[in-house]
Amino acid sequence: MPAKRYLMTPGPTPIPPAVAAALALPIVHHRTPEFRAVLARVLENLAAVYRTERDVLLFTASGTGAMESAVANLCSPGDRVLVVSAGAFGERWAGLVEAYGCDAVHLRYEWGETPSGEDVASALGEAGGVHAVFLTHSETSTGVVSDVQEIAERVAPSGALTVVDAISSLGAIPLETDAWGLDVVVSGSQKALMCPPGLAAASVSARALEASRASRSPRFYLDWARTLKAQGEEQPVTPFTPAIPLVRALDAALELLLEEGLEATIERHVRLGRACRAGVKAMGLELFSPDEDRSAVVTAIRMPPEVDAGPVIRAISGRHGITLEGGRGPLVGKIVRIGHIGYVDVFEVAAALTALEQVLAEAGADVERGAAATAALDAYGGEAVRA
Amino acid sequence: MPAKRYLMTPGPTPIPPAVAAALALPIVHHRTPEFRAVLARVLENLAAVYRTERDVLLFTASGTGAMESAVANLCSPGDRVLVVSAGAFGERWAGLVEAYGCDAVHLRYEWGETPSGEDVASALGEAGGVHAVFLTHSETSTGVVSDVQEIAERVAPSGALTVVDAISSLGAIPLETDAWGLDVVVSGSQKALMCPPGLAAASVSARALEASRASRSPRFYLDWARTLKAQGEEQPVTPFTPAIPLVRALDAALELLLEEGLEATIERHVRLGRACRAGVKAMGLELFSPDEDRSAVVTAIRMPPEVDAGPVIRAISGRHGITLEGGRGPLVGKIVRIGHIGYVDVFEVAAALTALEQVLAEAGADVERGAAATAALDAYGGEAVRA
Repeated sequence: MPAKRYLMTPGPTPIPPAVAAALALPIVHHRTPEFRAVLARVLENLAAVYRTERDVLLFTASGTGAMESAVANLCSPGDRVLVVSAGAFGERWAGLVEAYGCDAVHLRYEWGETPSGEDVASALGEAGGVHAVFLTHSETSTGVVSDVQEIAERVAPSGALTVVDAISSLGAIPLETDAWGLDVVVSGSQKALMCPPGLAAASVSARALEASRASRSPRFYLDWARTLKAQGEEQPVTPFTPAIPLVRALDAALELLLEEGLEATIERHVRLGRACRAGVKAMGLELFSPDEDRSAVVTAIRMPPEVDAGPVIRAISGRHGITLEGGRGPLVGKIVRIGHIGYVDVFEVAAALTALEQVLAEAGADVERGAAATAALDAYGGEAVRA
Repeated sequence: MPAKRYLMTPGPTPIPPAVAAALALPIVHHRTPEFRAVLARVLENLAAVYRTERDVLLFTASGTGAMESAVANLCSPGDRVLVVSAGAFGERWAGLVEAYGCDAVHLRYEWGETPSGEDVASALGEAGGVHAVFLTHSETSTGVVSDVQEIAERVAPSGALTVVDAISSLGAIPLETDAWGLDVVVSGSQKALMCPPGLAAASVSARALEASRASRSPRFYLDWARTLKAQGEEQPVTPFTPAIPLVRALDAALELLLEEGLEATIERHVRLGRACRAGVKAMGLELFSPDEDRSAVVTAIRMPPEVDAGPVIRAISGRHGITLEGGRGPLVGKIVRIGHIGYVDVFEVAAALTALEQVLAEAGADVERGAAATAALDAYGGEAVRA
């Protein structure tokens, strides 16, 4: 038989059969009533997942495209901005604001640390006149999830815009776009939304739209005004030909997600995170990402000092068909990351942990074999299949 | 039975079963050896279709994204550029260079006219100091195909860069990126390449790359240097998570195209164009696009003066499931466009023409019924199925 494969990275993630089937449908033209109805439903359901009454703009692009749209539409060269970073994706904000010539103040944490509202408030006070703050909700490179609600509360008095990368968190961790006063929230299709990569979105508050009208940065494909105008037609459309199969896939995926219910989906992610961490601890390894319910996207596991994560990941992939991820930047070789967002169940988490046990034991590490899968299943609780 | 649908627009276009099947495969991670091998083959095959030895950069975006990449990577604010336009897509270049603050000279033709090398040479001489010339190979809004080879020859002595939108022409009409000295050629997946929309590409000459290093325009997601660096790894990768199913679909589509052979593919498009024009003439209608072999992408048909194209197109779609396109801008209501690129055969062209005959006759137009399908099949010549 063909080998079964397990995609256990924090994006891209596996897709359900109904989403795969939607991808393979015959192509329709994007200006037909048929496709406009699909797009209308996608935009409405995205807003429900975002928990916003405002517009969510859809782009055919990777998540980075939606991040760039925020910088290009909000900022002009020389604008003072604050970037909060504690890993690879925070650094992406830094790269973007640099590319657009912003006057950037950088609140930079060690990789693995958790940004705090207090630090952000101090940085805002010291910098003065900050136009926008760029945050990462779930820092996939380290497994750390920020308390965006608390940070946004500390940003609000300064009058700066709050821009959040929720690419790997949307649908997995509570996020209240409107209630928390988040001006822009960007997301990608290939994470907890159970869809392939290639679509990205950005929600825009009234203040963000107002700021975008003043921005002098050049943009066209990622221009919010063009996108908003097209999406605002009586039956919405995209300003440029979209990735039609991906929009239909996202439609199918969002219907599945909302059928489960946003709260139930988030609760399932919390339980998957608990399961993964329980398994890691049961085999005697140390967690790199915080041991708390918020760590529901990806579990980062510290390798024993004598073990290089690279060969471990390659062995697990080569022998068992399970794709995990290693560390980036300063964490290369030091951590293994198991993603558990989207269409992932507890037995896949258990499979990844069991394979990790085996490969680490063979590498001479002091791990307890046979403990992780059971611990994961018990910590998960409840049933995998919903009535 | 479910209605059969005919997508007869100049993009998006229908996809072959093998391409649909590739879309529905399980998601793999884009940094695995498995996916890198797919990407490597796609880049190599794209270069073969482009007829270039240079790099072809791949983006997850609509064709407009690749167009914007050319402007953002080549031009700085204030750079003098020449835009040659004779329709909606020439105007897109104009919009892009305006967004990036270029000092644009605009050689603007009436919609339906064919740009000439002589006019371009004069415009270059008058303008002086032109950094780049932006051209449209196949102007899908009118059906006009420019003689890009001749125009490029007239641009060369000026030293300006030649940038060509070949989004709807690549794979359908002869295009020699290297032999014609084209510095940048942009394309999209959803046209003659028989793939869904969502991927775009840009070939870059040595001169174009040199110019990109001097450009001061901000860019990140569409940055050529980032893309080139990632694609230049020992096994290529993309700088950002690509639309994985679309890359695999493009792989399947390019394999099919090159199996038929680029010359044979182009010849088939020439014959489809002949078939469509012969059918149009047989029913007594007037062609809007030129009656020449180069008109191999889309046939624009002038409606009789008393007939509005809008209701005709809606009737053909609503009653027969055949999607055609109308005119844009000044041509709204005046023309009907039948696309015949990609995975389209002569019987589908005949079906579109037969439906058009019927609907026009019912609208009281003076058309010959029963003539078009036969004329199309005869003009097509040869066999639909290759031995």
